[in-house]
Order: sequence, then C-alpha cells, then structure tokens
Amino acid sequence: MIQPDSYIRSLLKRSPGETVLAQGWVKTRRDGKNVHFIQLNDGSSPVDLQVVLDAGVVPDDVVASISTGACLSVEGELVASPGKGQAVELKARSLTVHGAANPAEYPLQKKKHTLETLREIGHLRARSNTFGAVFRVRNALVCAIHKFFQDRGFLYVHTPVISTSDAEGAGSMFQVTTLDLDGLGKSGKPADFEHDFFKRRAFLTVSGQLEAEIFAHAFANVYTFGPTFRAENSNTPRHLAEFYMIEPEMAFCDLQDNQDLAEAFLKSQVEQVIAACGADLDFLAKWYDPELRQTLDALLNASFERITYTEAIALLEKSGRTWEFPVHWGVDMQSEHERYLTEELIKKPVIVTGYPREIKAFYMRGNDDGQTVAAMDVLVPRIGEIIGGSQREERHDVLLEKIRAMAAHGMREENYWWYLDLRRFGGVKHAGFGMGFERMMMYLTGMKNIRDVIPFPRTPGNAEF
Amino acid sequence: MIQPDSYIRSLLKRSPGETVLAQGWVKTRRDGKNVHFIQLNDGSSPVDLQVVLDAGVVPDDVVASISTGACLSVEGELVASPGKGQAVELKARSLTVHGAANPAEYPLQKKKHTLETLREIGHLRARSNTFGAVFRVRNALVCAIHKFFQDRGFLYVHTPVISTSDAEGAGSMFQVTTLDLDGLGKSGKPADFEHDFFKRRAFLTVSGQLEAEIFAHAFANVYTFGPTFRAENSNTPRHLAEFYMIEPEMAFCDLQDNQDLAEAFLKSQVEQVIAACGADLDFLAKWYDPELRQTLDALLNASFERITYTEAIALLEKSGRTWEFPVHWGVDMQSEHERYLTEELIKKPVIVTGYPREIKAFYMRGNDDGQTVAAMDVLVPRIGEIIGGSQREERHDVLLEKIRAMAAHGMREENYWWYLDLRRFGGVKHAGFGMGFERMMMYLTGMKNIRDVIPFPRTPGNAEF
Repeated sequence: MIQPDSYIRSLLKRSPGETVLAQGWVKTRRDGKNVHFIQLNDGSSPVDLQVVLDAGVVPDDVVASISTGACLSVEGELVASPGKGQAVELKARSLTVHGAANPAEYPLQKKKHTLETLREIGHLRARSNTFGAVFRVRNALVCAIHKFFQDRGFLYVHTPVISTSDAEGAGSMFQVTTLDLDGLGKSGKPADFEHDFFKRRAFLTVSGQLEAEIFAHAFANVYTFGPTFRAENSNTPRHLAEFYMIEPEMAFCDLQDNQDLAEAFLKSQVEQVIAACGADLDFLAKWYDPELRQTLDALLNASFERITYTEAIALLEKSGRTWEFPVHWGVDMQSEHERYLTEELIKKPVIVTGYPREIKAFYMRGNDDGQTVAAMDVLVPRIGEIIGGSQREERHDVLLEKIRAMAAHGMREENYWWYLDLRRFGGVKHAGFGMGFERMMMYLTGMKNIRDVIPFPRTPGNAEF
Repeated sequence: MIQPDSYIRSLLKRSPGETVLAQGWVKTRRDGKNVHFIQLNDGSSPVDLQVVLDAGVVPDDVVASISTGACLSVEGELVASPGKGQAVELKARSLTVHGAANPAEYPLQKKKHTLETLREIGHLRARSNTFGAVFRVRNALVCAIHKFFQDRGFLYVHTPVISTSDAEGAGSMFQVTTLDLDGLGKSGKPADFEHDFFKRRAFLTVSGQLEAEIFAHAFANVYTFGPTFRAENSNTPRHLAEFYMIEPEMAFCDLQDNQDLAEAFLKSQVEQVIAACGADLDFLAKWYDPELRQTLDALLNASFERITYTEAIALLEKSGRTWEFPVHWGVDMQSEHERYLTEELIKKPVIVTGYPREIKAFYMRGNDDGQTVAAMDVLVPRIGEIIGGSQREERHDVLLEKIRAMAAHGMREENYWWYLDLRRFGGVKHAGFGMGFERMMMYLTGMKNIRDVIPFPRTPGNAEF
C-alpha cells in the first residue's frame, strides 16, 4: 500500500540521494540511447514522476511491456533532474511490471481524446490527466465544504434518501419499489402498495431540506450533503438524474444572515480548493478554460451585489435586450436573464431576494407586502444560479393556510403534520439554502458538461458502470 | 444565527462578567422565590446553560410560556455558578420567547421516555438528551472517518446510488423506476424497461466496491462513504433498509496491509470520537451502557488477534459449546460464533482470514490452496463482525473463470466487461474492506437498536419523515 510519504506528489518534493519506491501507472515511455524515460503517475498529482531506466536494468521483454497504462513498481534513487518543471527524477535500480496494457487494445493511449470518448470508457477515464485533475478537485471540494461548516459548529446530518413525504413532486421523482414489476404488469390490476416494502409509495429524495429543518430545531446550525435525484427527461449538459446537494439550515437566522453565509461559503470553497489543488486548476485552465483563475479570483475579491427581484426585473426591462423568454414582474427568471445580470451588467456575483410568492415554494416566508417571499438566489458569472435559498415560514397559521391552499395541486396536509409541529413547539425564525455540488464543480473546474465532473453520471438511458 | 463563540458549548467556557446572547430550547424551568431557573440547550453540548431569571425581568405571561421545548433568546451577564458541574450561569437581562411549546400538547416533557416512544416522534427526538448525544457522536464519527483517510492521502469518491450492474443480487435490491406502476398493473403486459428512465432495470446500490476498484486503479488509495440499500424483509434491531457504508480500496495492497489498515481505522475512529465527544459518551454510558468506556479503551489498547478461519473453526469445535448453528469447516460463521471468539475466548478484537471460497464473493482472491480466499472479517466484542473485506482477484483468467462458473446463479459475463478490463489494463494486486457506519455507531454509543443511531430509519413498512 502506498504510504503518505511515498505518493508521487510527495516523492517530487523529496531530496536527491534518497532511495524510494514509486508505484503507479505509465503515462508514456520514451526511449533514448541506452536509456528509457518513463512518466509515472499514481493519481496523487497532475505532475508525473520521471523514471530513468538504464538499458540492461530489466530484460528487453520487460521494457517492451512498459507502455501507456501499464502498472509498475520502481525502486531506485532520486536524482536531481536536468529537465525543467521537476526538481527530481527517479533513477531505477529495479522495476516490476504488475500489469501490462497491450497498446493494440488499451483505449487510453497518449493523445487528446474528446470528453465524449472518455465518457464511454468511464472505467478508465479517471486515469487521464483531465479526470485526474477533476476528481482531485472533487475530493478537495468535499473537504472544503465539511471544513467550512464544521469550523462554524454546524452539525452534519444524513437526511433520508428514500422518502415517502415529498409526494407532491412525484412527477419528477424516481419510485422505489420491491414489487415484482413483471408480475404486476401481467396481473391486470393496479399496484397494491400495501404489499410494497414500505407499505406505501416511496421515492428517491429531491431535497433534504424539510428533514434538515427538524435538526435545525434541535442543533441550531446543521447541514446536509448527500445524493439527490430528479427523474426529468432532460438530456442537457446541465442535468443529472443523480447529483449531490449541500443544504445548510440555521435556526435564529433570517434572510440577511442567510445571504452572508452563502457568500462566505462560496468564497471559502474557492479559496480552499485553490490552496489544495492549484496545479490541477492550472492544468484545467490550460486545456479547458484560460480564464478560469481570473473567474475564481474575481469571486474571491468581490463583494456580492445584493438586489431585489423587483430591481432585477426593472434592470432587465430597461436593458434593451430581446429575450427568448420575455420578462416582466411576476415571471421566473431564466438562465439568460440571470447570466446577463451577473456577467454583463453587474459583472460579479449577485444575490437576488424577494421573489413573487406565486413562483416560489410553499415553505418560504411571506414578506409583509403580501406579494413576495423571503427567497434568495445567488448568481455567479458563467453558471448563473448556483445557490437557492430562503427564510422559512415559521408562523404556524400562515404555513397551514398555504398548505391548504395547495390542496388543489395535490398537497396533502396530513403529510406535513410533523413539519407543522416544528411551528407548534419551540418554533423560531430560520433559514437555509441549497447548493448543487456538481454545479460548483463546473464553476471550479471550467468543465462545460456536468457529466464530466461526477464519477459515474446518470442521465436518461444511461446508468453504465 | 448562532456564531461559533456563542454556542452554549462555548458560553460554558467563557468567563464571569462577559455579556452574552444565548439562544436555544428550554429543557426545564424551575421556580424559586423571586427567581426562575431555566436549563437552556442549543444542541451543541450535553450540558445545559443555566439561565437565572429574576422575577420582574419579563412579564408573568412570558414566564408562563417558558416551558419545556420553548425556544428562547436570552441576553445577560455570565456569572460564577454556585452549582457544581458548571463554572458559569447566565443572569438574564432580557429574554424573548420565539416559540412556546404548550405543555398539554408537547410530547417531549421532562421524564424518561422509552426509545420506542421517541422513535414515533422522530421529528422531535433529536431534542432529547439521548439523541443530542447520539447525533453529535454521529457528526464526530463522519469527521473522524474523513480525517483518517484524508490524512493518508486517500481520494474520496462518490460511487453511484442508482446502479444497473449488480443485477445478480436483485432479490434483495430496491428497484428504481419511472414506469407508471398503476398503468403497468392494469396493462396486463410484462414491464417494458425500454420505456423506463434508464431503458433497463435499475436498482439502488448494495455496495460501491466495484466502482471503487475503478478509482483505485487511477488514484491508488480511495474510499467511498455513502448510502447503501438492502430490501431484506428483516425487522431486527440490527437491520436497516437504508444505511451508510465506508469502503476503502487500495492498489498495491495485499491482505496483510488490508488488516493493518482496518485495525488502524477502527482505533482512529474510537480515539477521535472520544476526543471530540467525551461528555456525550459519558452521558450514554450512564444511561445505556455502564461499560462503554472500558469497551472503547479495550479496543484502543488491544493488538488485534489474527487467526485463520480454519483455526477459528477448530477453536469453536473444541469449545464444548452447543451451538444453534452447528459448526464445521465450510460453514459460514454466525453471530453466536463470532461473538464467542471475540468476547469470551480471545476477549479482544479478532481478524479472521482465509475463508472457504464457496461461502465468499466471486471477486475475492483465490489462495494457493485452491480451497480458501484472501477474505477477512474483523470481529469486535458486543457487535461481532464490524468490517468485512478481502484482497481482490486481480488475475484476469482466474476472475473470468469464476464469473463464468456463476452463470448458473444468474451472473452474466457481459455485465462485468469493465470490471474485467481493470485486470487487462494495468492491473495490480489490490484490496479493500467495508464498514457499516451504523454498526460502528452502535459500538461507539452503546445503543442496542440500529434505528436509534440514524436520523430517519427506513425499515419494512416504515419510511416516516
């Protein structure tokens, strides 16, 4: 097993003269006169370790098997490297090939593959430079998120994946069942959920927010970070059927605090990932988005603009633009509107608050004007909406009325008894937001297709691996 | 929003004379002569902050609403506490009741409730002392696990929740579908998965191991930590339909390294949780398991015993015990056998290796004896098996033969093309294990029912909240 001081990332920082064991996979082999140069990588770093293998150290047939993708252990001495970009290289004393990779069959040869091609070899793409960088960023981003909340004393809570309570959104939810579907089809009778595992219809969660509110009423500051599902038949570069969401929820918190936390959260993620994965970001910038670092630095240095929905609509109306989706007070903003505001007009992150109640969820707190709710969306250049949140309706009577008013839309009061109870017993103003993890990954890496920032994307017709 | 220095956990460590704002929920109120004593808790600590409220600071009707479960903000001065167990208490200068909790209706009154009762009010139980402690331990355990692996340079990977590749275990798997089940039932025809979301049968994952192996062949050392599902109709204190698993997977790793890592992992978790949640563990020991700390200390101080399955069977055979499940070479060990070995005979954690190949999974590496595989189970007192793992079969020909031999059991070679590819291209010896997170939670907290260590348990017939 590779120990922390033996990752290639660590070896590259050690001193000439040390005897070390390097293990990893071959990126390339180049043959000189009486010497072979092997670029070796173990996934710990975007920079390879150069192995210098003199002729005769291993038999010729072993050398022949050292091709792109082969797995090696190399023992030898670190020596000062004459090449630039690395301080040391490894002069091999002995070398073992654990597994070869026949060049005639191994699909991941040294050349630039399209991201589409790499998606089809999802079991190998993590070995490419691009996905090495992407998944190291992903790991760093997970750590950054936990650190941000743990440093602030937030309690991490696993909200359930299988849910029976969000039934009003059933149209875009996956059903979870143990019913024998072939038998059901042949039966000629409607499904009898009394015989299903949970004795009722069950779904994959679309949000952990309502359950997070339970925990915020016990631990004050909490957050979730888990898989979330949408069964929308959307084959776009921005949609996944299975993705990750982070949902903080805070008691004693209003929309002002909520905005402050969201801004601090985004900045902290960017700052931590730059610190942990600077070389990976440089690689991604070079190949995928030359302005990546400027984009990230701009977010770090910006004071987020805060405007109301009403102000935003006025700005859009007087923009002189022709919109695909016409804009006036009362409509939901589309991506074209959001990106215009943050990218072109204000040119930095923008938090929009106070949306019309008709276009927002039932649980958002009604403002005194009777028309708007204490909602907020955080918009950033290149992505548009990256965070959506709100102060929650904590007034029992107001919430109950809203739920009852939604009965016509399939909302059933009896499903929300426990959610209403939170307002009956020790209720308090509270707020929270949700951030799509993969959307943040796209922002950080510059990748344009959401399928390229998650290990195994699930989309309509596709759940391979 | 409560800031880090204003959690009750923090206030309890601050000095007399400071003016502070405390916010939380009332545990109890006691009335003295011209003074009220309020135990206030915000979920940050098992110890309450005592608030001293002199008569007249707030009107009588406000005092009346300060009952168990009510939510308060209290501003005042920290003063030295005459009581034992706390250095300071808060002398209230002003007090706001955000939400009352009518004593005639609020179910969580100050008295000892059974755990069964608390399970039925899953939206309130997190406010109890017991579940406050349990969920703080859960949070600390998540952090401990990430820290253990991140410190060793492991890459965290999200393996997919929705899976189409584990079809051989379909009997105990939840199906995921967007088919209209009522319509399907009435159709009189078998299900047509061409029209399902993924155009084929899909399931909730039972393990991320196979996908983790993909990543171990790119990043060497990786781990998963995510939800896992079993559709077994088991209504026991040890089974959940939805639970969490941690699955590290390491390239260049044999069964010896694997055992070392498992032992270090268990010890690290115990050590970190004791450091983070000592007071919570003391509370749980007092009410649920007086020997909890000794159990945990014993694990920390033990050098885990390592024996083979063959030795274990011999020990069981000569034990003189009568077993519910008779024991002889070739059978799978049951809980009674495992617990006898670790609790009574060896009296410390035991790692058993080298199980018969017939009772273990296809992917485990065959030993040279032709009879056993390089499997390992880690057994600990009070729980039995807490970790199961193996070195994986890295030899392409051996693995292919095993998969083909399982065709009669419904295993289809074409589903494993990518898993086999890992052995064709840069393959290497590798190993890993899985730990059930909730089982570790039971070990750490002394709780006897697995439903009491997860926020929202899912079991047959039960997916409330």
